[in-house]
Amino acid sequence: MEWVKDVKANLNKIGFIGLGNMGRPMAENVLAKGHNLVVYDVQQEAVDSLRELGATVSQSPQDVAAQVDCIITMLPNNACVLEVYEGENGILKSGKKGSLLIDSSTVDPHVSKTVAAIAEAQGHVFVDAPVSGGVNAARLSQLTFMVGGPSEVFPAVQDLLFTMGARVVHCGPVGSGQAVKICNNMLLGISMIGTSEAMNLGIRLGIDPKVLLTIINSSSGRCWSSEVYCPVPGAMDNVPSSNDYKGGFQTKLMAKDLGLANDAATRTATPTPLGSLAYQLYSNMVNSGFADKDFSSVYQFFLRRGSMQGSNP
Amino acid sequence: MEWVKDVKANLNKIGFIGLGNMGRPMAENVLAKGHNLVVYDVQQEAVDSLRELGATVSQSPQDVAAQVDCIITMLPNNACVLEVYEGENGILKSGKKGSLLIDSSTVDPHVSKTVAAIAEAQGHVFVDAPVSGGVNAARLSQLTFMVGGPSEVFPAVQDLLFTMGARVVHCGPVGSGQAVKICNNMLLGISMIGTSEAMNLGIRLGIDPKVLLTIINSSSGRCWSSEVYCPVPGAMDNVPSSNDYKGGFQTKLMAKDLGLANDAATRTATPTPLGSLAYQLYSNMVNSGFADKDFSSVYQFFLRRGSMQGSNP
Amino acid sequence: MEWVKDVKANLNKIGFIGLGNMGRPMAENVLAKGHNLVVYDVQQEAVDSLRELGATVSQSPQDVAAQVDCIITMLPNNACVLEVYEGENGILKSGKKGSLLIDSSTVDPHVSKTVAAIAEAQGHVFVDAPVSGGVNAARLSQLTFMVGGPSEVFPAVQDLLFTMGARVVHCGPVGSGQAVKICNNMLLGISMIGTSEAMNLGIRLGIDPKVLLTIINSSSGRCWSSEVYCPVPGAMDNVPSSNDYKGGFQTKLMAKDLGLANDAATRTATPTPLGSLAYQLYSNMVNSGFADKDFSSVYQFFLRRGSMQGSNP
Amino acid sequence: MEWVKDVKANLNKIGFIGLGNMGRPMAENVLAKGHNLVVYDVQQEAVDSLRELGATVSQSPQDVAAQVDCIITMLPNNACVLEVYEGENGILKSGKKGSLLIDSSTVDPHVSKTVAAIAEAQGHVFVDAPVSGGVNAARLSQLTFMVGGPSEVFPAVQDLLFTMGARVVHCGPVGSGQAVKICNNMLLGISMIGTSEAMNLGIRLGIDPKVLLTIINSSSGRCWSSEVYCPVPGAMDNVPSSNDYKGGFQTKLMAKDLGLANDAATRTATPTPLGSLAYQLYSNMVNSGFADKDFSSVYQFFLRRGSMQGSNP
Repeated sequence: MEWVKDVKANLNKIGFIGLGNMGRPMAENVLAKGHNLVVYDVQQEAVDSLRELGATVSQSPQDVAAQVDCIITMLPNNACVLEVYEGENGILKSGKKGSLLIDSSTVDPHVSKTVAAIAEAQGHVFVDAPVSGGVNAARLSQLTFMVGGPSEVFPAVQDLLFTMGARVVHCGPVGSGQAVKICNNMLLGISMIGTSEAMNLGIRLGIDPKVLLTIINSSSGRCWSSEVYCPVPGAMDNVPSSNDYKGGFQTKLMAKDLGLANDAATRTATPTPLGSLAYQLYSNMVNSGFADKDFSSVYQFFLRRGSMQGSNP
Repeated sequence: MEWVKDVKANLNKIGFIGLGNMGRPMAENVLAKGHNLVVYDVQQEAVDSLRELGATVSQSPQDVAAQVDCIITMLPNNACVLEVYEGENGILKSGKKGSLLIDSSTVDPHVSKTVAAIAEAQGHVFVDAPVSGGVNAARLSQLTFMVGGPSEVFPAVQDLLFTMGARVVHCGPVGSGQAVKICNNMLLGISMIGTSEAMNLGIRLGIDPKVLLTIINSSSGRCWSSEVYCPVPGAMDNVPSSNDYKGGFQTKLMAKDLGLANDAATRTATPTPLGSLAYQLYSNMVNSGFADKDFSSVYQFFLRRGSMQGSNP
Repeated sequence: MEWVKDVKANLNKIGFIGLGNMGRPMAENVLAKGHNLVVYDVQQEAVDSLRELGATVSQSPQDVAAQVDCIITMLPNNACVLEVYEGENGILKSGKKGSLLIDSSTVDPHVSKTVAAIAEAQGHVFVDAPVSGGVNAARLSQLTFMVGGPSEVFPAVQDLLFTMGARVVHCGPVGSGQAVKICNNMLLGISMIGTSEAMNLGIRLGIDPKVLLTIINSSSGRCWSSEVYCPVPGAMDNVPSSNDYKGGFQTKLMAKDLGLANDAATRTATPTPLGSLAYQLYSNMVNSGFADKDFSSVYQFFLRRGSMQGSNP
Repeated sequence: MEWVKDVKANLNKIGFIGLGNMGRPMAENVLAKGHNLVVYDVQQEAVDSLRELGATVSQSPQDVAAQVDCIITMLPNNACVLEVYEGENGILKSGKKGSLLIDSSTVDPHVSKTVAAIAEAQGHVFVDAPVSGGVNAARLSQLTFMVGGPSEVFPAVQDLLFTMGARVVHCGPVGSGQAVKICNNMLLGISMIGTSEAMNLGIRLGIDPKVLLTIINSSSGRCWSSEVYCPVPGAMDNVPSSNDYKGGFQTKLMAKDLGLANDAATRTATPTPLGSLAYQLYSNMVNSGFADKDFSSVYQFFLRRGSMQGSNP
């Protein structure tokens, strides 16, 4: 792949599409590291803000694609990714060849592969690079990127993504970044619910929560949720559960990731009984007023919520 | 509790009831540390073996209780514990007072509390002290004991249990040892199933299992099962999954512990949707030929088992 | 069993213990059919009300047992049944022999068998006879009784229960009434949730609920819930869903019955994955403000409850 | 829609694509009712068989479309439907306008809507009409058709489908036939599993299965599975459970339909906890050797399968 050399040469002018809660601070960090930036978003305010910081504003994804050889996209869902890449004024309508396209959205691995195939047919390289870490990590350039794509372009991708993150991992061919992310997050969702059930059961059986947590964390029950993100208020400092479940990773985002895992499991006929029930529980929480709280609030979801008793639910 | 002093004085003569797979090596270790031992079991062979090592053999639990001031019991289930303590020739029929009774069986915390209340009414102290670690840990005196009982007797209990274990943790009042154990093991069962689902899904999505495991273990999906006990054959050395799921912690024992957690959750009206489904899955495995395999074989349970296709299941 | 003749002879004087929401109208109907009645309850008001209607008031279950040869009990849970029969002033402390004891409480079949064994040892016959049908059916003598006990006494039991019900079914030996009831109600809970899921999914896919219901009811998806008790408001007249889920069979009672089924399944190592999840869902509803609503409100539980969005759950 | 008149005029020459287990007897019935038939399938044997009965054989879906104004398709899955309609030699490549296209495959409602939109843009009417009933019903013209499409064409569709079925139901706009079918079958899968759990639990609690079934069927637990398709061998005559689970509706087909319901629920964010677990259980059965057995064999799946005990699963 001779082409990789060209890509490297052009990394000083970058396109960035999708300037939402995550995309905006990410774009700001790319700009702050000295790259020229051409941006696009449907929200005028976000666009204006980047313009003030020195970015060039563009009128469509197609228009961005015409001006740069490397584009980063950060979009909310499957439909937006398909629209921005394959839509009427999409990136792949620019008529250009040989661009490096990096999608940091969290979407179905199947969508990544579909877009990649069309992009490849036009001579582009498409890479999926979903992130782990929330808005704060985005602001502080502390994101983790899980990258799926040809290993030949990984060094260039890594150089660029380090402007926004602290860790860039190559997971395999295109779609692998998404696959690894949804597998990890499915396991995270399951073990967070499990930790909440185990802590709640222990407390109702009369065990002191801090004693229980200490023993679990030196035993076979330990997991990330029990070790650094305990869902029981007051058991640990500086975690969302001790701040009314504010901040952190929102329940609605966990529900979205579990939905993607559910889709992938159905498509590949993979049994995921706990992952599937975890999806149902987080969906139920979204329907029950927990959408914007941190996902560790599943502990609270399991408590008897007395104030609602008797009220019209 | 003046009584504690007396207990300490008498620890050189110990009763041991229940000489099964776990109880026998435990009793041997107590003997090896220089204590006199009075034993009882329904299996003649186990009893004979301990006699040859120097133990005194007794004819019933009541008979053991008449000869010693401190008894350890290691029994398979609720019914056996109730029989050995409260039955016709049970420990509590001896007419003695002031004994230290340590039950290392894994049973319902409710059973521990019930027996403790009757024992206390007779002037005894009853302590629950279920273990974590299997037959090998029992042989090597490497068990962990989770102790529930009055803190006044804990030092004496600890001294004695260190003859059989490497770690003795005080969890709270009587029943707490059982409660902590079932909470930990419920979370363990959930995260083992979750790890198996996530690894299987990733593999079917085309990810290399070792790559996936490495990323999960440096991310929020990590848990004890993913870090030191990976259920995917070949992904890790020296674990049951790489030895045809032999050794380790049997599926039927995990099913038993999850059943105890399920009972405790129902009795205390605690929601445990994943714990409850984990119990169903492990019960199903017991019914499907996995009873004696290590509990990480749930990974194998999720694979398409082609050789059975078409056979009469 | 010669004894049955004696039982028949004494049915004109009946003891009744437990005068709650169900027991009180049941006792009134026994009285209204011309039987003499000796009653006991811890609630003074209920007792006074029966006295005004002509019943004799007694001071304890033991006291009731001393005055009659046939007793009906209608109590809220396992613990109350054990207390009323085996407690200090319990029925089985009267020193009498040869009474017919009919327990209409819904409890664990294991409790029924335990009490029956002790009763039998004293020369009594104990029969479990839980009911189906709510407070209205109790008032109108329209209850269904599911009876477990020796077939020799069934004719006498039937005669008596027909004073309170429209249908009396013999299910097998003692405990069978309870077993049949929890099996039926477990299946009812499962199919009500299933109906709610199917109707909700169809509606969200754009199908008219009445069209969907009509097709299901002439197809293989039909069940009691879809045919006569549709959970979707407005799809059917004269059902709780069309009356804000008032009346009917309360969610907390369904949760109780599913808990009994869950206990029985765990004790007998019977796989019940859907029954177990149904129990979790109804428990969650009890915790979420639905305790007193009809159990068909699970349909509402699945809807996005917008008014709670953003409020502190 | 003036066009409907034309459609009616052309019903004596029909295209039929997809001559598998279901499609072949369906096509034979259309032929037997006096319609001319133009057929296509990738399997030569099926095609030859129809030719011998008088059908004209065609070389591709596009070729069929060129010769007739009305086509019926009966295909195994989403991908085949997309290929046959939108593929390179697909129906929609014929350049014709104004055909009536009836798809009797069971697929995602979303697929039906997608194909319908493209068909409509070319002046065709596309109708989804999945069937209920198996191979025997297909042979005997006893199928039920659930039709989604414009009401203007329903009379013509109905006339044609009555050549193959006994019942034709209009469910709403295009996609509604699929939606109704997956909702009905999801509820069917749930209540079959529920019936199996309830019967198994009752039997293990000592109840006679026929007594239990009789009571459930006159109570609130009753459903189609308990009334006419009991999964317990010997409890009912002439059902698959009494014939070693041969015939009937295969487990793999139930798993497929539950997968479609699962997809639709995820896409519409509809909570389906039991439907989702039912899908997991039927998928697990497919992986465990039950794929070709009737779906009521879930009862057998729940039994302890002793012969496998100890064997390498």
